Amino acid sequence: MSGEYALSSSELTKVLSDIEIAQRATLTPIEEVASKLGLTPEDLECHGRYKAKIQFEAIARARTRPRGKLILVTAMTPTPAGEGKTTLSIGLAQALSHLGKRACVAIREPSLGPVFGVKGGAAGGGYSQVVPMEDINLHFTGDIHAITTAHNLLVAMIDNQIHQGNLLAIDPRTITIKRCLDVCDRALRHCVVGLGGPIHGVPRETGFEITAASEVMAVHMLAKDIPDLKKRLGAMLVAYTYGGHPVTASQIGAVGAMAAVLRDALKPNLVQTLEGTPAFVHSGPFGNVAAGCSSVTATILGLHLSDYLVTEAGFGSDLGAEKFIHIKCRSLGIQPDAVVVAATIRALKMHGGLALQDLDQPSAERVAAGMENLLHHVSIMRSFGLPV
Amino acid sequence: MSGEYALSSSELTKVLSDIEIAQRATLTPIEEVASKLGLTPEDLECHGRYKAKIQFEAIARARTRPRGKLILVTAMTPTPAGEGKTTLSIGLAQALSHLGKRACVAIREPSLGPVFGVKGGAAGGGYSQVVPMEDINLHFTGDIHAITTAHNLLVAMIDNQIHQGNLLAIDPRTITIKRCLDVCDRALRHCVVGLGGPIHGVPRETGFEITAASEVMAVHMLAKDIPDLKKRLGAMLVAYTYGGHPVTASQIGAVGAMAAVLRDALKPNLVQTLEGTPAFVHSGPFGNVAAGCSSVTATILGLHLSDYLVTEAGFGSDLGAEKFIHIKCRSLGIQPDAVVVAATIRALKMHGGLALQDLDQPSAERVAAGMENLLHHVSIMRSFGLPV
Amino acid sequence: MSGEYALSSSELTKVLSDIEIAQRATLTPIEEVASKLGLTPEDLECHGRYKAKIQFEAIARARTRPRGKLILVTAMTPTPAGEGKTTLSIGLAQALSHLGKRACVAIREPSLGPVFGVKGGAAGGGYSQVVPMEDINLHFTGDIHAITTAHNLLVAMIDNQIHQGNLLAIDPRTITIKRCLDVCDRALRHCVVGLGGPIHGVPRETGFEITAASEVMAVHMLAKDIPDLKKRLGAMLVAYTYGGHPVTASQIGAVGAMAAVLRDALKPNLVQTLEGTPAFVHSGPFGNVAAGCSSVTATILGLHLSDYLVTEAGFGSDLGAEKFIHIKCRSLGIQPDAVVVAATIRALKMHGGLALQDLDQPSAERVAAGMENLLHHVSIMRSFGLPV
Amino acid sequence: MSGEYALSSSELTKVLSDIEIAQRATLTPIEEVASKLGLTPEDLECHGRYKAKIQFEAIARARTRPRGKLILVTAMTPTPAGEGKTTLSIGLAQALSHLGKRACVAIREPSLGPVFGVKGGAAGGGYSQVVPMEDINLHFTGDIHAITTAHNLLVAMIDNQIHQGNLLAIDPRTITIKRCLDVCDRALRHCVVGLGGPIHGVPRETGFEITAASEVMAVHMLAKDIPDLKKRLGAMLVAYTYGGHPVTASQIGAVGAMAAVLRDALKPNLVQTLEGTPAFVHSGPFGNVAAGCSSVTATILGLHLSDYLVTEAGFGSDLGAEKFIHIKCRSLGIQPDAVVVAATIRALKMHGGLALQDLDQPSAERVAAGMENLLHHVSIMRSFGLPV
Repeated sequence: MSGEYALSSSELTKVLSDIEIAQRATLTPIEEVASKLGLTPEDLECHGRYKAKIQFEAIARARTRPRGKLILVTAMTPTPAGEGKTTLSIGLAQALSHLGKRACVAIREPSLGPVFGVKGGAAGGGYSQVVPMEDINLHFTGDIHAITTAHNLLVAMIDNQIHQGNLLAIDPRTITIKRCLDVCDRALRHCVVGLGGPIHGVPRETGFEITAASEVMAVHMLAKDIPDLKKRLGAMLVAYTYGGHPVTASQIGAVGAMAAVLRDALKPNLVQTLEGTPAFVHSGPFGNVAAGCSSVTATILGLHLSDYLVTEAGFGSDLGAEKFIHIKCRSLGIQPDAVVVAATIRALKMHGGLALQDLDQPSAERVAAGMENLLHHVSIMRSFGLPV
Repeated sequence: MSGEYALSSSELTKVLSDIEIAQRATLTPIEEVASKLGLTPEDLECHGRYKAKIQFEAIARARTRPRGKLILVTAMTPTPAGEGKTTLSIGLAQALSHLGKRACVAIREPSLGPVFGVKGGAAGGGYSQVVPMEDINLHFTGDIHAITTAHNLLVAMIDNQIHQGNLLAIDPRTITIKRCLDVCDRALRHCVVGLGGPIHGVPRETGFEITAASEVMAVHMLAKDIPDLKKRLGAMLVAYTYGGHPVTASQIGAVGAMAAVLRDALKPNLVQTLEGTPAFVHSGPFGNVAAGCSSVTATILGLHLSDYLVTEAGFGSDLGAEKFIHIKCRSLGIQPDAVVVAATIRALKMHGGLALQDLDQPSAERVAAGMENLLHHVSIMRSFGLPV
Repeated sequence: MSGEYALSSSELTKVLSDIEIAQRATLTPIEEVASKLGLTPEDLECHGRYKAKIQFEAIARARTRPRGKLILVTAMTPTPAGEGKTTLSIGLAQALSHLGKRACVAIREPSLGPVFGVKGGAAGGGYSQVVPMEDINLHFTGDIHAITTAHNLLVAMIDNQIHQGNLLAIDPRTITIKRCLDVCDRALRHCVVGLGGPIHGVPRETGFEITAASEVMAVHMLAKDIPDLKKRLGAMLVAYTYGGHPVTASQIGAVGAMAAVLRDALKPNLVQTLEGTPAFVHSGPFGNVAAGCSSVTATILGLHLSDYLVTEAGFGSDLGAEKFIHIKCRSLGIQPDAVVVAATIRALKMHGGLALQDLDQPSAERVAAGMENLLHHVSIMRSFGLPV
Repeated sequence: MSGEYALSSSELTKVLSDIEIAQRATLTPIEEVASKLGLTPEDLECHGRYKAKIQFEAIARARTRPRGKLILVTAMTPTPAGEGKTTLSIGLAQALSHLGKRACVAIREPSLGPVFGVKGGAAGGGYSQVVPMEDINLHFTGDIHAITTAHNLLVAMIDNQIHQGNLLAIDPRTITIKRCLDVCDRALRHCVVGLGGPIHGVPRETGFEITAASEVMAVHMLAKDIPDLKKRLGAMLVAYTYGGHPVTASQIGAVGAMAAVLRDALKPNLVQTLEGTPAFVHSGPFGNVAAGCSSVTATILGLHLSDYLVTEAGFGSDLGAEKFIHIKCRSLGIQPDAVVVAATIRALKMHGGLALQDLDQPSAERVAAGMENLLHHVSIMRSFGLPV
């Protein structure tokens, strides 16, 4: 069935846009979706009817169960438009469900910044979407807001520490952490803060990054539970002293407040695909600066509560999948059971030498030439001893 | 009954702190609380078990019903610790419930900034609290995050407009709107943004304010529905052209995106008091820069679904209550049916001439002298023809 | 004679502008001008043919001689165009010379900034000018450049001190001294310096002022000799420590280098009036922030080498003359022997109530009304017991 | 003779420092020095007894005479301490004088910044110095102050142009010219100016450079006369418009004021060597950003008024001498008659591979190895067809 959809979706999307498809969907109540994974209403913290956070108790319980298979979706070197890893992951999970398997999918939460930029959301496409799509693309369950707040609370405490006598002897010019916002705001990239005289802090050069690039996001993705979250937050390097010694968030005394702000955000979010397959959409670090994958907590839940968890790792296999295996899998103590390398005709043509603006033109020759890129990504995955 | 609690709470709080009291409370499921106001489960968008947003349809339906009585709680000129308007409002609503009336209370959402600062939350105290207190004091249902995002989206679009050719001829030095964050961050009060060369925008002096001081928050408080929200957002003055003409958010083209971000935030939040009385906690503009009261949407719901809605207006009657009547009541087309002017022995002593550090000492003389302040506030309220 | 010139100059200047008059003048070689004061060629350090600095030895020698009379020229409250104190001072000295007295005049050095601004130079006007006028209005003998350099050297050393470990524990936000330039440069009034990362100093808010407003200029005006210069430079307050203690230029270790840079600038400059009367043009602090008069060294020379020294004090008698008497005279241990309060019909009309744009219209009534201002300035001078 | 001095000076300087030698020197009156070049007192504008500027009329007159030989002193790749080109040039001119030739030397004016830094002045060393050394190392005849002022006047006019409506549509982020000061001031390298609100200009990122790096200095070095100066100043590129078109100083309307400020500075300065040989010390652009040599006007004078003019070109032959020939000689229409490539044992050892801190140790092997560097510089000069 999934294959059929894949074939027909390109035609259908000429008629129905992603958002139209998402809005026409009839959604299953989230308690019912959760029950497919053996989760009870008590395991859920509902956000409206179709979104729920999963309680920590349910995660702890899941870890005692045997785990299913982990299928990693990665890609050849992508074109600027992306190669559809998310769409493919969702489709694969739906297909496995059609085959009668207990399957679920785990993907990242979209950033709001790009939603209002050119890239659009990140909830899949065509008939391989997670829903309620608009909610997921906007505030969803507030995780990214919480991460923004925790991050900025830390930086405010650093500046306040310096303003209040600077007992840690932090050199303000060496503060490595910027502030963050989940808005694409060019003018905040480079700024001078702390102006306005002695009562308004210490002047220094800094900037804002998008929340998906925050190290707090990376920590949120990797943390197994609240104690692990606190340990990872506390270890964050934020600055250097005048003497050249590193200063951590723990020394700033920010960990307790940050963990309080992040408590709910650490609970995985459960939604569904257009066909009612359970889908975890949780955490969203950028693949270029961090391991661009969904959370460890969501992976644990999905892996132990289903036969197959399909998940994706951002960018090509050389960047996203390597980080997934080196960082996230090592932290989890597991390996993927299978790897899928997504490829598109467009990407093959591009890597075969066709210019970006000409990718819409057919060229069997360029496609063949582009196979070299695809095969290299396959070989990377094979070098880990994984079935591709 | 409320009187009894008021008497005993000062003793009890020697034993139990506010947070202990709140954590020991047994909460009623929010559907049950909602049913006291005639709201059905379909009217609710639940956030966990004890918080719910009310759908716009329910607001529209409520407006067709006759309205109950509006009781405004204001205060004499406050001490820095506050004079307990919120606690008194909650207590009053609970007392009316004990008397068998259909009563509810409407208060403001707390800012996160002060929560981590010295002031603590704003969910009442002792046995006159709204719960779940910790949730309300942290992210709650995400309204303040949405307001922060909408506000910063607007400012990012202004800077982007200037960067992309400045067709509106905005003089960057006249931009009146700052950015905002829900974090107490001294170092952001005054900053220079847009640094880093031509591709990173146009350098200009600006700053951040706390979200409670955002004009978007004031708009959120006053907006009756989405069209009204859009109209008010669009009218926001954000800058001047080189020729001295005002520029509005509407000219920036930001209204659609801002309204999309604020859509859910406009729905009133329903929680409960420690005794299960329905409580709306919605919107939270600062009283010193805006009308410091809860939202118009919450007021409409509370007023039309109960016999008595108790609500408060920030600061003393000369600031908060006058704005409440001049701005919010005018917008609603109603007047309060009764006014309560909160007074404390501490405030009377302070206005009687006792120094701040001596307020713990008894002084009947100073209390008597401080009555002048209280009586003036009573006379202000009487000047509106209101029963005090 | 001076009266005749005063009468005729307004007519003549319809035909010849100040600069034309100055350029047509036949100048006396400066050695010859100097000889009128008993100065020998060895006492001079010539700058071209018509400008000379006077050696310190000549000053020391002059102090051993009896002193002449000191005539102070001040003014009623001025109009924006100035009331001609400089012109009057030069004219008076020329008149005294015509009467056969050994007379000279001492005025301030013009700032370059206003020369290229709207105000024009400050070398007198009509036939009461000091010459070579263009030289005096431009670099002259380099004094203002030296003051600029000494001033900025001090500030560079402060910033460098902070950058190199800040052993004095200076709070960079409390540095009271700005940098200076002898250029009207609006964009430098408020700036943030020390940007660019740890190797480029410590970011802080500061600004530039015009050199005439520099405290180094005020010190230059008051210093009797090199040791006095060093003492006064060393006492300059430049910042505060984190503990709130004042930091002086002496603690910065800047005095030696500053004095080296200022050595030649401390020697008075001798030029001549259009009629060959000796004229000292030396030092130039702004009257609004300092004692707006020429240097103590020039006053000593002029006073001891002639019968009459005519000198001026900037702004009205309430500002310039009071500072002259309170600060400069006290430092010299003398009092003026006579005071002249300059008044113009324009100023009388303005203070009589005529609007600025109407000052060209005759109005005997307004002139009479404006006498009140003039009489008050006369009474101020009388309050010092001085003949006006 | 020069060889003798070279041999003995290293011994003598163990006893007498450069400054002691300079201070013990008996100087010849500058009129007498000038007369060696056929210059009359009327050709001079004296600054004290031992410094004079040469009038433009004398330059014009000199150009009508036949020219002498031009000897260029350059060097192998220098060590950080410099290889003594200035000392060698002065020594060569003195030696030629001893041989009975009419010889003079032309070198650059020292920057004040490095004088107070680590490098010391640039007036030669030992018995090959130009004097009065202290004057030359401080303000000298004010040329560098004038260049600083002209430069900053231009930039102030650019900022003012933008502030006053920006009729030229200059993009403030593209202004290529910084301000300058003749002070080593790290904190001014990167700054944000134009802060303080709409009346204080337009905020923008910029910085200060040392005056020797100013393009106005390069223009001052190359300008033959006032019209040429104006033409070169007017052609200076200072910014780009929003449309990407270049903006010149001429379009800013700054050329007249700049030329007025630079008028006297364009006249070459005449001083003497310790042995009374005429020495021109005029203009001082940095060799790393400009042609690091003395002025065209000084070269014209020296070349036409003597048999041999010895002059130097900053840095190694690959940088300084190439620029001297490509830029300055082309502008003059001449070629050097002979080239001297300065070499020191220290530099040979360094280029032979000895570490900087070991240069004091003897090593014949390293000296031999370093010859490769020297020979390459010789070959560069030979490639121009010049006798080395």
